[in-house]
Amino acid sequence: MPVGQTVERKGQMVISSTANKQVKYVNALMKKAKMRREEGLFVAEGLRICKEVPKGRLHTLYVSESFRKSPECLPLEEKADRVEIATDPVFSAMSGTQTPQGVLALVRQYAYTWEQVSRAKGGGNPPAHLMVLEHLQDPGNLGTVFRAGEGAGVTGILMDVGTADIYNPKAIRSTMGSVLRVPFLYVEDLPGALKQLRDKGVRLYASDLSAKRDYDQEGYQGDIGFLVGNEAGGLSSQAVSLAHAKIKVPMAGQVESLNAAVAASILMYEAARQRRAASRG
Amino acid sequence: MPVGQTVERKGQMVISSTANKQVKYVNALMKKAKMRREEGLFVAEGLRICKEVPKGRLHTLYVSESFRKSPECLPLEEKADRVEIATDPVFSAMSGTQTPQGVLALVRQYAYTWEQVSRAKGGGNPPAHLMVLEHLQDPGNLGTVFRAGEGAGVTGILMDVGTADIYNPKAIRSTMGSVLRVPFLYVEDLPGALKQLRDKGVRLYASDLSAKRDYDQEGYQGDIGFLVGNEAGGLSSQAVSLAHAKIKVPMAGQVESLNAAVAASILMYEAARQRRAASRG
Repeated sequence: MPVGQTVERKGQMVISSTANKQVKYVNALMKKAKMRREEGLFVAEGLRICKEVPKGRLHTLYVSESFRKSPECLPLEEKADRVEIATDPVFSAMSGTQTPQGVLALVRQYAYTWEQVSRAKGGGNPPAHLMVLEHLQDPGNLGTVFRAGEGAGVTGILMDVGTADIYNPKAIRSTMGSVLRVPFLYVEDLPGALKQLRDKGVRLYASDLSAKRDYDQEGYQGDIGFLVGNEAGGLSSQAVSLAHAKIKVPMAGQVESLNAAVAASILMYEAARQRRAASRG
Repeated sequence: MPVGQTVERKGQMVISSTANKQVKYVNALMKKAKMRREEGLFVAEGLRICKEVPKGRLHTLYVSESFRKSPECLPLEEKADRVEIATDPVFSAMSGTQTPQGVLALVRQYAYTWEQVSRAKGGGNPPAHLMVLEHLQDPGNLGTVFRAGEGAGVTGILMDVGTADIYNPKAIRSTMGSVLRVPFLYVEDLPGALKQLRDKGVRLYASDLSAKRDYDQEGYQGDIGFLVGNEAGGLSSQAVSLAHAKIKVPMAGQVESLNAAVAASILMYEAARQRRAASRG
């Protein structure tokens, strides 16, 4: 069969060669942040996240011939703009995982606005509960912050452009679907964004190992934002200087720092705990 | 130069072939849990953890020719029973990382006793603060629990034999050295161990999505243990039935579960927070 071609099977073309240009296109979208930005798309792999993609954002659904026999396939096909079928070996070549489930989607990125993410007061909104990330490098950590963030009820996640790409396949996987639900924004000028948050009355807490106060000695019931920095180097001094207070998660033993996603999760869940305790009265 | 041989350079043999049997031995120790058990050794890679390995546990130090020129090398050599030098390319072949630092160690496993891990009362010990893991599968998650656990002041970590091997290189890396400091034990009979803990007066809390009570509605100042299960399936019903209470970390939005290491960290830090708050008076 000719390289780079599809073969027709029961009226639907089947991608049967790893040289097919769609295979290369999907692989490139998985690997290159720049291409994802240019195309406005990202790759979501696996049944679970594909089920959660809303209609209108599912650009192309790729399924393996085996997966197509599953009853789970049809509902996904119905909400996809386009469906492509690949032989099982070709699907494996397209997949970013070692044990492919036979389903992946090209999903349209959604651009939240500054207003959506920064949550101006009023309009019946709950108080702001923001997570601000500066130069967080590891895609797995980033996705984990999204997942725990949604669980803790964050109202938005702000990231500087030095933070990893949330549309990286490893980050997407770690979000377990939260990337589709948590409002977030990358900002070129993080100090400028922090100043705007201050002007709106959002109280900013910088997670910093040099802090004298433990994270649980502050009150987080008003409009607040946590600032968490790079895994190795923490926050820049400029970001710290724009916060109202420095806080730390105290560490026993000889631990020098916590995993960044764990530290962020402990902070977000402390705010959630205080808010629940206050609502219990 | 003959395959599998070392060449002598300034009085010290240098491993110059990836076919050298030591390269294969180190690679096998990285890959095979069974072999690690049989040999009583594990591989710790990178300068940071090698600095933390206590004298007496550093069985063999492997350094690259480049690293050997660093002033950091001599103190490590001095505490190692044996030092081996490899050419930079051979060291890279031995290494488990993409950007090797040029230093790794074979470290003797340390076998904690049941008494050390379960912390019998008395003797001026602080109250027990145990983490019990059942079938936790991901080595990265396991290592992260050790790291956050030391930070939160856990007194021990108990694992069933279905939990990942803490001596897996990825787990070791995620512990950031905590594996050398936190008392831990794998048990064949987890239900039996839980019964013994109950008999000692340790109150057990099972992290379970079906729990009615939030984790922050319990008091953790006495002797306690948290039970956390598998990433996908949670705890077995038998483990849950042996706990005194079920607790959950509440989740907003559409989050179905948290990352297991994040959930465990939130629980351990809640116990730490309550104990600090109590000691503040």
